[in-house]
Amino acid sequence: MRTDETEHLGEERETGRLEAFSDGVIAVAITLLVLDIKVPRASDLGGASLLYVLAHQWPVYLAYLTSFATILVMWLNHHNLFKQITRADHTLLLLNGLLLLAITLVPFPTALMAEYIREPQARTAAVVYAGSFVLIALFFNALWRYAAHDGRLLAPTADRQFVADINRQFRIGPILYVIAVGLALISAVVCFIYVLLLAIYWALPTAVTRFLHPSWRRTARHVGE
Amino acid sequence: MRTDETEHLGEERETGRLEAFSDGVIAVAITLLVLDIKVPRASDLGGASLLYVLAHQWPVYLAYLTSFATILVMWLNHHNLFKQITRADHTLLLLNGLLLLAITLVPFPTALMAEYIREPQARTAAVVYAGSFVLIALFFNALWRYAAHDGRLLAPTADRQFVADINRQFRIGPILYVIAVGLALISAVVCFIYVLLLAIYWALPTAVTRFLHPSWRRTARHVGE
Amino acid sequence: MRTDETEHLGEERETGRLEAFSDGVIAVAITLLVLDIKVPRASDLGGASLLYVLAHQWPVYLAYLTSFATILVMWLNHHNLFKQITRADHTLLLLNGLLLLAITLVPFPTALMAEYIREPQARTAAVVYAGSFVLIALFFNALWRYAAHDGRLLAPTADRQFVADINRQFRIGPILYVIAVGLALISAVVCFIYVLLLAIYWALPTAVTRFLHPSWRRTARHVGE
Amino acid sequence: MRTDETEHLGEERETGRLEAFSDGVIAVAITLLVLDIKVPRASDLGGASLLYVLAHQWPVYLAYLTSFATILVMWLNHHNLFKQITRADHTLLLLNGLLLLAITLVPFPTALMAEYIREPQARTAAVVYAGSFVLIALFFNALWRYAAHDGRLLAPTADRQFVADINRQFRIGPILYVIAVGLALISAVVCFIYVLLLAIYWALPTAVTRFLHPSWRRTARHVGE
Repeated sequence: MRTDETEHLGEERETGRLEAFSDGVIAVAITLLVLDIKVPRASDLGGASLLYVLAHQWPVYLAYLTSFATILVMWLNHHNLFKQITRADHTLLLLNGLLLLAITLVPFPTALMAEYIREPQARTAAVVYAGSFVLIALFFNALWRYAAHDGRLLAPTADRQFVADINRQFRIGPILYVIAVGLALISAVVCFIYVLLLAIYWALPTAVTRFLHPSWRRTARHVGE
Repeated sequence: MRTDETEHLGEERETGRLEAFSDGVIAVAITLLVLDIKVPRASDLGGASLLYVLAHQWPVYLAYLTSFATILVMWLNHHNLFKQITRADHTLLLLNGLLLLAITLVPFPTALMAEYIREPQARTAAVVYAGSFVLIALFFNALWRYAAHDGRLLAPTADRQFVADINRQFRIGPILYVIAVGLALISAVVCFIYVLLLAIYWALPTAVTRFLHPSWRRTARHVGE
Repeated sequence: MRTDETEHLGEERETGRLEAFSDGVIAVAITLLVLDIKVPRASDLGGASLLYVLAHQWPVYLAYLTSFATILVMWLNHHNLFKQITRADHTLLLLNGLLLLAITLVPFPTALMAEYIREPQARTAAVVYAGSFVLIALFFNALWRYAAHDGRLLAPTADRQFVADINRQFRIGPILYVIAVGLALISAVVCFIYVLLLAIYWALPTAVTRFLHPSWRRTARHVGE
Repeated sequence: MRTDETEHLGEERETGRLEAFSDGVIAVAITLLVLDIKVPRASDLGGASLLYVLAHQWPVYLAYLTSFATILVMWLNHHNLFKQITRADHTLLLLNGLLLLAITLVPFPTALMAEYIREPQARTAAVVYAGSFVLIALFFNALWRYAAHDGRLLAPTADRQFVADINRQFRIGPILYVIAVGLALISAVVCFIYVLLLAIYWALPTAVTRFLHPSWRRTARHVGE
């Protein structure tokens, strides 16, 4: 006696709890990043001024900024995908779990990068750092492709053009982070800046993106609309 | 003058807040696991390469993976149960609280396991680790049996076959983890792998589960539908 | 042109976000408690068995259990109050903020208690511990009295008898914790057990409570209904 | 075929998830503050009484109180703004992300302030502390001005007078924190007390605010109504 309508309502609530749980996990992960910014003990300053010591730990701030921006962009992505995905099944919950696994790991490579960026082992740290973003990009792809295949879990009203645009973007996402791994083998600092620029680019308001990359125009109108 | 309908709506909201609080607690617990993956200090490396030191702490990653997968499966379970449970009373809130108590503890036995897996005391750590999952399985049982007894807190539309299937699954859950405790007395590594396989098995998409275990078929169709 | 109905809907959403934020804060606070359960380093065991060392840190587990139970009961309380309180104003948000301030502090006195319970300074720690619960009980009172005064922020359908029962209970709450402070001056262990028993008593299912304390009968029927 | 009504519902859900994510991040940030209140190890007390040692670390409590109050007021602010802002676009999500970046940073300058308030370097720490609040005030301004410009993202029913009042208040917010930076250059303690008073003033119930600052009267009636 369950009508199509109640069935649909049940599914709304389904996606709702998945989104709420994901929001919770991402919110905790993004906030835990601050625990890596250590306060220098007063007794450890030696003769140095506090300002100098604080300025000297710039890689920590840069790591914070880069990881915060990247996780934020991931949340925006997640948010935009789930405006199209309105149904959930067990596989989707599982793929979303793998994505969250990769996102909650981010504080670790971030701290690693901050610790080693001025050490001889910087490139190893940078490979791990960039590698963790390759992982996230791959899991995002798996989630989206599973949900969008033949419109399996999309809203009946999903915009075909928008879906096609996400497909196109997601094809290049992992490649861009594989390039980051390649850059890490050459120079940790270059890799770092590249990842930060990627995050800033993806976070850019649509007007700027449209100017830089006209083919994203239609997507741009939809993201966050 | 409160009609049955508003009464029902009030109860929806009741379960809603219980689910939201549980999601919050589980989201924090699953994200705190990353704090146990420590960055080796640059000054502690000695002559070793960073890659070697990172690779050498593999038990930490395995512990992370196993506990993340297990907590995630618990969340999926919780999620599926509360698609059937739509009413809440004080006892349910209390039993859910005990379940959350056990789940928030998981980061402790996880860290214990990672610290001792290569030490002579590994089996003690593994018993604690597996024991904490026995506890969780028991609390899950208590929660479900209380709610499902005579359909006490289930939705009027709850699927009898699905309820019977959960009952059957939940009867074996604690037993499977008691076996893990037994394995822990023999070998910590075997216990670890067994717990990881359990989590992976429960997380498997329905198609695979159906193939491995045909009697779960009907459940499979419902979980996450 | 805003009708009474939309005004009412706006207010629903108001309380909704206050509840969601409170749930988030309480969920994080209750989960952070686990960070105080430290894993003994393998290199620090000396000749002792891991089991002995783990058993020896029993005050840490007892502190965890007591604080978890107490915060959980607070959440249940908060939950029950906000089934009656359906409107929000600035003062309510502020009083709720003070309550959250006190609740987020709990991990600190908990860790203090665990560290000092076997030290000569145990009673000082116990006074701080019990004192923090006096604070919470007072802020709960302030919140409730403000909201319930002349039914200011209560739902029009709020049950008068239930409101009167909460009033009675809340009158004794702070007194019971002041007694805990008194006990702390005599013995930290007695204070600890008393606080744990208080939490367990308040968490008890209604049937048991009704048996122990018949005058709460009517309340009992309502809590969690 | 999407009617205006469904479009509007979609937008409700949009702001809903932004608010839920922001609540999560702010809830974690405000609760992490407690991790900076360290329990003195029993073995470090020397001959001193625990009470003396606890009392001696008063700057830590003051830092906790000030930062908690400030973040809470920010949450109240966020909450009030999003009662007017009902639509979301990509730029709003981005500006909200910058705001969250600044808010999640607060535990760091708080710990810095607590560590250095009795050291010769106190003023440097205070400048960083006050500076972080300037940043937050600026991001709040950017968010609000973007949303309110020509009523871009406001509800059609937004109260013009209320919007004008927020505009006025937000003009002075950053200035008041720039003054805090100026005070920091003179005395860390004065800066600290000034920031605490600012938070208390903004948190005050409307009746008191109205008395102190009659021109906010109309706002006062709306905030939290």
